[in-house]
Amino acid sequence: MSLLVIGTVAFDAIETPFGKTDKIVGGAATYASLAASYFYNNVKIVAVVGDDFPQSEIADFENHNINTEGLQIKEGEKSFFWSGRYHNDMNSRDTLATELNVLADFDPIIPEAYQDCEYLMLGNLTPQVQQTVIKRLKNRPKLIVMDTMNFWMDIALDDLLETIKMVDVLTINDAEARQLSGEYSLVKAARKILTMGPQYLIIKKGEHGALLFHEDKVFSAPALPLAEVFDPTGAGDTFAGGFIGYLAKVGSINFNNMKNAIIFGSALASFCVEKFGTEKIKNLTQEEVSARVKEFVNLAQFEIEL
Amino acid sequence: MSLLVIGTVAFDAIETPFGKTDKIVGGAATYASLAASYFYNNVKIVAVVGDDFPQSEIADFENHNINTEGLQIKEGEKSFFWSGRYHNDMNSRDTLATELNVLADFDPIIPEAYQDCEYLMLGNLTPQVQQTVIKRLKNRPKLIVMDTMNFWMDIALDDLLETIKMVDVLTINDAEARQLSGEYSLVKAARKILTMGPQYLIIKKGEHGALLFHEDKVFSAPALPLAEVFDPTGAGDTFAGGFIGYLAKVGSINFNNMKNAIIFGSALASFCVEKFGTEKIKNLTQEEVSARVKEFVNLAQFEIEL
Repeated sequence: MSLLVIGTVAFDAIETPFGKTDKIVGGAATYASLAASYFYNNVKIVAVVGDDFPQSEIADFENHNINTEGLQIKEGEKSFFWSGRYHNDMNSRDTLATELNVLADFDPIIPEAYQDCEYLMLGNLTPQVQQTVIKRLKNRPKLIVMDTMNFWMDIALDDLLETIKMVDVLTINDAEARQLSGEYSLVKAARKILTMGPQYLIIKKGEHGALLFHEDKVFSAPALPLAEVFDPTGAGDTFAGGFIGYLAKVGSINFNNMKNAIIFGSALASFCVEKFGTEKIKNLTQEEVSARVKEFVNLAQFEIEL
Repeated sequence: MSLLVIGTVAFDAIETPFGKTDKIVGGAATYASLAASYFYNNVKIVAVVGDDFPQSEIADFENHNINTEGLQIKEGEKSFFWSGRYHNDMNSRDTLATELNVLADFDPIIPEAYQDCEYLMLGNLTPQVQQTVIKRLKNRPKLIVMDTMNFWMDIALDDLLETIKMVDVLTINDAEARQLSGEYSLVKAARKILTMGPQYLIIKKGEHGALLFHEDKVFSAPALPLAEVFDPTGAGDTFAGGFIGYLAKVGSINFNNMKNAIIFGSALASFCVEKFGTEKIKNLTQEEVSARVKEFVNLAQFEIEL
């Protein structure tokens, strides 16, 4: 029984109003697997890098008990690279460069030892590749969580819709929910998207928190108000990784556990944005995570007797 | 012991993507006093209208146990009129017309019977007039809540800052908090504003809920996700009225009661936007209000044991 994370392991170069980085390690699978590792000790990744990817970074995964057998290293090729500049509001950004490199023909090979996968996190990636992973697992996982983005709605909508049909939980942001459904109201958007396959929909709203929709139920999770948001890169991936990692730990899928999973995911995401790249979420203690979750409890809880 | 609401009682003409109205009754004091009346049965208003204001609307206040002795009716003059058009996102709007009329030289006279005021709601109005009301009360109320808007920051900042010094709770939206403080981060904005006088700051974020700041504490209240937002006019006033009405009812000012007051205010505001003008909040039952508050509890509550 394991939690499999698929997605990019890559280099980013990031500019924010607070500074800029050289090439640093990023990628959806990087953030999601690190986040999940705080809750669950059998996380495995499937991803691809070039021979430019530092061995020390692979060692960091292993230090977090993340199995890297499924991390393909392509000799003579380069890792995926993305570069972007955030605007002052930190909610919007311009892409300065995208170099697919090894990602251009990524074939997600699932090691035999990964066939015990019970929880599957499909990090943001070509929907076709996400789908291939589902098909290559001999047993359908107990829970499949899929993250995606507007880019795939623009250029691969049919593939995307086909993949969405196969998953249990979809995580997208508010603009993407509107684009995918054609509805402005998030309630109407959610109703439509819940007919497309997933039983659960999480709409991420950045500094405004997240909404969870399931059947006729809805849960609103706050985001922690932060004095400084240093770098939002990877926050969504970290959220998703913390979310599924918590569910893998508790081992039971229901609306109440999903609500808690969103709080744990949000807590990890709130750390992620406090430093550039993975710096913060690589070096957390369980005490720091618990204290942060407690902050969320204090932030959101109230007592009304009716 | 009473709750005094000061603000506009006026006419609005509203266009939204869902339709448009002729002149209908609106105004900050209208919405706030109606909202407060669901929780507290000794609400009094100070406002001014012209002789064009329908007697039936004044009777409606009285049907809600709202004392209208302080509602001045100026013979031969016209009531304040505002007309606006909402954009598709319902968060932004254009003002089409503003006719001050009776508001141009409004002198807020406090009837002697109003001197028992313990809770004072300063609805959005010229800061100078808000301040005059505070000064004309012989005893400083137990709680003064002030609503204002960016317009006064633009044209009457000094008066505004002087009035803010005199209040306990300030309610503004996120853009206004940024404008007033010069800080983009709402946490930093709140820290600054809490040095300007108020002990409590409520930042309203529309469809994203509201934040309450007090000392080093923060509370995040959700907004109810709605399938249809018909007309946002008056939602902020309704929120403020429900907020102070609930506090007047419980009679004790502390952070926990403030949190609950925000939930009750948010519940009433969620009704307000479901119809044009005051139609919905004029005709609620206590059962409907309780059921809506229960929806907020279900929306926001989770149980994490650490």
